[in-house]
Formats: sequence, C-alpha cells, structure tokens
Amino acid sequence: MERIERHASHGGSQEVWKHASSVVGGEMKFGIYLPEAALRGQQCPVLYWLSGLTCTEQNFITKAGAQRYAAEHGIIVVAPDTSPRGDTVPDSPDYDLGQGAGFYVNATRDPWARHFRMYDYVVSELPTLIEGGFPASDARSISGHSMGGHGALVVALRNPGRYRSVSAFSPIVAPSQVPWGEKALAAYLGDDREAWKQYDAVALVANGGKSGGKSVSEQLPLLVDQGDADDFLDTQLRPQLLQAACEKAGYPLQLNLREGYDHSYYFIASFIGEHMAFHAKALA
Amino acid sequence: MERIERHASHGGSQEVWKHASSVVGGEMKFGIYLPEAALRGQQCPVLYWLSGLTCTEQNFITKAGAQRYAAEHGIIVVAPDTSPRGDTVPDSPDYDLGQGAGFYVNATRDPWARHFRMYDYVVSELPTLIEGGFPASDARSISGHSMGGHGALVVALRNPGRYRSVSAFSPIVAPSQVPWGEKALAAYLGDDREAWKQYDAVALVANGGKSGGKSVSEQLPLLVDQGDADDFLDTQLRPQLLQAACEKAGYPLQLNLREGYDHSYYFIASFIGEHMAFHAKALA
Repeated sequence: MERIERHASHGGSQEVWKHASSVVGGEMKFGIYLPEAALRGQQCPVLYWLSGLTCTEQNFITKAGAQRYAAEHGIIVVAPDTSPRGDTVPDSPDYDLGQGAGFYVNATRDPWARHFRMYDYVVSELPTLIEGGFPASDARSISGHSMGGHGALVVALRNPGRYRSVSAFSPIVAPSQVPWGEKALAAYLGDDREAWKQYDAVALVANGGKSGGKSVSEQLPLLVDQGDADDFLDTQLRPQLLQAACEKAGYPLQLNLREGYDHSYYFIASFIGEHMAFHAKALA
Repeated sequence: MERIERHASHGGSQEVWKHASSVVGGEMKFGIYLPEAALRGQQCPVLYWLSGLTCTEQNFITKAGAQRYAAEHGIIVVAPDTSPRGDTVPDSPDYDLGQGAGFYVNATRDPWARHFRMYDYVVSELPTLIEGGFPASDARSISGHSMGGHGALVVALRNPGRYRSVSAFSPIVAPSQVPWGEKALAAYLGDDREAWKQYDAVALVANGGKSGGKSVSEQLPLLVDQGDADDFLDTQLRPQLLQAACEKAGYPLQLNLREGYDHSYYFIASFIGEHMAFHAKALA
C-alpha cells in the first residue's frame, strides 16, 4: 500500500492510497478519512462508501462534506474506486459498463470475469486491508449512491453479520428490472436471470426476509434517501419496489423522499450528516 | 441572465447563472446559493466568494461545503468565475496568467485591457446584478482563497463602505512582492510598480490605516486563515507581511495559523463554518 494524497481535514486526515489487489488483478485506489482519534492510534469504527457510475475514489471525498461528521462521530470513512482501471483492464465506450461501472458484482463472463470482482473486493479484500493497515475496528457500516447504493444494499443484505447498518442515497434497488442494471448484469453475469438475484436488493429482501430463510436478528438498520426531482427516479431507481419488498418481508426500512432534490452530490451533501448520525448510533 | 444549473441544497437552492457582462465584454458565470428564506422572497445579506488560480465558478460550490452554513445563517453566497473566458478572450499557456487568472484587477495593458476588468466586475457590476435580480439586501461581505483571498482583501480595503466584513483563506497578501503577483501585475498593469499598490493588500493597509488617510471607522472586521503545511506559504503567500502591516497601521487582524493544513479545499471546508459565522455576525 502506498499513500498518494494526504490533507489535513477537520482535525483528521483525508488520504488516498493505492495498492495491488489480488482480487481484481490490478491496482486499486481508495480514499480514507482518519478522524483525530485514529491519528492518535485509537481503534475507530468504519463506514464504507460505494460511489456511483463514472465515479472514482475522488468524488465522495471532495464533494460530500462527510469529513465534518466523521470527525464529530470519530468514524473512519473508506471510499474505494468503482472498478479496476488501466490499459490492461477491459472497458466499454459506454459510461454504464466497464471501467467506472463495476456494479459491485463478481463477473462470470468474458472479457469481464478476470478483473471485475468488486463484490469480493468490497466484502473481503478491502476490509482486511483497512483493519490490518489502519487503527480500524471490525465495526463496519456501509452506504453509497446510485450504483453504489445498490452495492451497499446488496453487500449488507448478503452479509448482515459483517455490518452494523446500511444506508443508501438514490440507490438502484432492483437492477434486474431497470435498464442500467439489465445491461450490466447481462454483460457481467450472462443472460440467466437467476444469477442476477444475488445482486438485486429487492430480490434479496424478498428471498431473505421474515418470509424467507433469515431471522429477524439478521435485519440491519436500513435507511434510504431519495430525491423526488431525480431524473432517474422512475426509469432506473424505483425505490417503491424496495419499499414494497420490505413491507412484504417485514424488513424495517426508513425511506425518506426528499422534495425537490436531484441525483447530484448537492443532495448527498444535504443529508450525509443524517446518514452519518444513523451509522454512528449503530456503530457505537 | 439565464439560469443554467439548479440543485436543491440544504433546504435552499444552489444555482449557476450566466449573463452578458458589459464590464468584461463577454459572458460571465457565477454560482449563487439561495437559502430557504431567499426562496420565500425574504431579503438576505450576501457573501461574495472569490476563487483562486485555475478555478471557475464550480470549485467553491462543489467542494467547500458552505451551503450548510449559508442555510443556517440565512446568507446568500455568490461565487463568480475568476476571469472572462472563451475564444475571443486573450489567454496565456500559463496557469497563472490570462483565463482563470484574472487577479481581480482592471488591466491597463494590451492584450488584456479590453476584457480583464475583474475588479470592476466584482465591486460594481456583479452586486448590481445580484441585488437587482435576487432577494439580496445591500449588506455585503467578501471572502476568497489564494488569488481570490488577495481579491477579497483588495476589494474590501478599497471599498470599506460597501462591505461589512472581509476574510480570506491562504491569501496572496502582497502580490507586489511574490512571483505570482509580480508576473500578473506586470502583464496586466505594466512595469510601473506604483500602479500595483492599489491591488496589493499590504500596500493598501500601509497607506490607508491609522497612519494613512483613513479613519478607524472604515476598518472592517478582518479574518485570515492560513495552513502551515501550505506549499506556497513562504514563496507566494507570506501572511506575516500582512500581520506586520496591520500591526503598524493599527488595523485589527485575526490571523489563524492552522497546523498541518495545506492549500486545498479540504482546508477551506474545515474552516468555512467559522468564516461564515464571522460574516454572519457582521451582516446581522
């Protein structure tokens, strides 16, 4: 691991690191905010943030303003890039497939299968790296935006024991049912829609809630914020599908529909303080 | 004037507008944050923010996180571009001269004199536009970063009656004495260093404080924040020159040297809340 950026921020340190990832077979970057307590060597809980389409590790750390709240609550915040990058990594000319659009899956189809393993990277390799290399406890929460909101929901629903809470801004809740998700899942996983279900929050809730196999004790505190002026609301996001699945499965969901807010980081910055407080409570 | 962006933010609206400027002879853009009270038509005071080298109207509005505090205090925040732009506007291949580097002067030398009139734009044309087109009162304060910190200091020191308070992050306090300033002022104003003094905060304080012509009643509340890990501290910024000039002239200055902070927006975001509170008090 090599630190490539370091900036004092709200009494702590906003850093960017790069490292060789065996899971994705190439170099990965992540942003990490270390609150003052962590700089003093005290173990701190960790919030993972997964970004959306086209984003790198930079978008969240420069635009969301989360550092102030991370400092307040003494939480480490880790924001990885959204895919492997570079000349040796397959790509597509489209913004919604390939580099910058990993969709947090383990791809099984060529040419993607070798490198596009962001699910394993986020669930396993990255936390191991963070908990081994920084004063990070194993108290983890996860959040994200849009494609990253989808990633956060899927990762948390499939691994409830590894996380204390999950939240999302403007998530793609049902990738199997919307154009962004159908395109990506078909490319990365092939045409068998059964294989898509493990990466579809609505399908996971339907299969794993009270009416499915999982116990209530595996339900995580779940918070979703969605702007009602979001251009992608009806075509790609459709939070009402998650709401209906949660109601049916008895999975508690706090869904905030925010009047006038769009899909941008201005929306995230407006409510990231509430999400950080939500996670801080679960991580305490 | 035409609105080209609009995003709900912290209960208010972050917008970007463009307009034909007669002062700079071309199109200009500015960001404006309207707190909820302004959206309801209530007159609000205005903080002007001047950005640094290479910046557009976007940097501050996407990275500083000022909207939260502007919402809290009910302040409109206006952040103009740092120069005129476009194919018909002269430029230089250097990042520190020409487009993106207006230095908040009225240029008198060719090829710059026609368009590079950012001083008049900031002091006169922009406030007229804001106070005519938005629910903005004539209670004004001004702040900025680096080249924009220089601009804020110069504009306020020369027009104390037009502003209630002034602050700066990492300002170029004495452009006549540092490479960035010497290059820009020579290009825009020519080699006569006497002409530079009207755009040099240290010279203005020395000539206009108690020992000069101005009365104490014209002294504005003045706050400067400077990181001690700023790469430009000793070569381009040199806040101790302003401190010495203020001490000599009896001009009250609050200078905060911040341990470990650099020249980036992470620094600004860490202390913009304190600056907004400082201005809110003066604007009340």
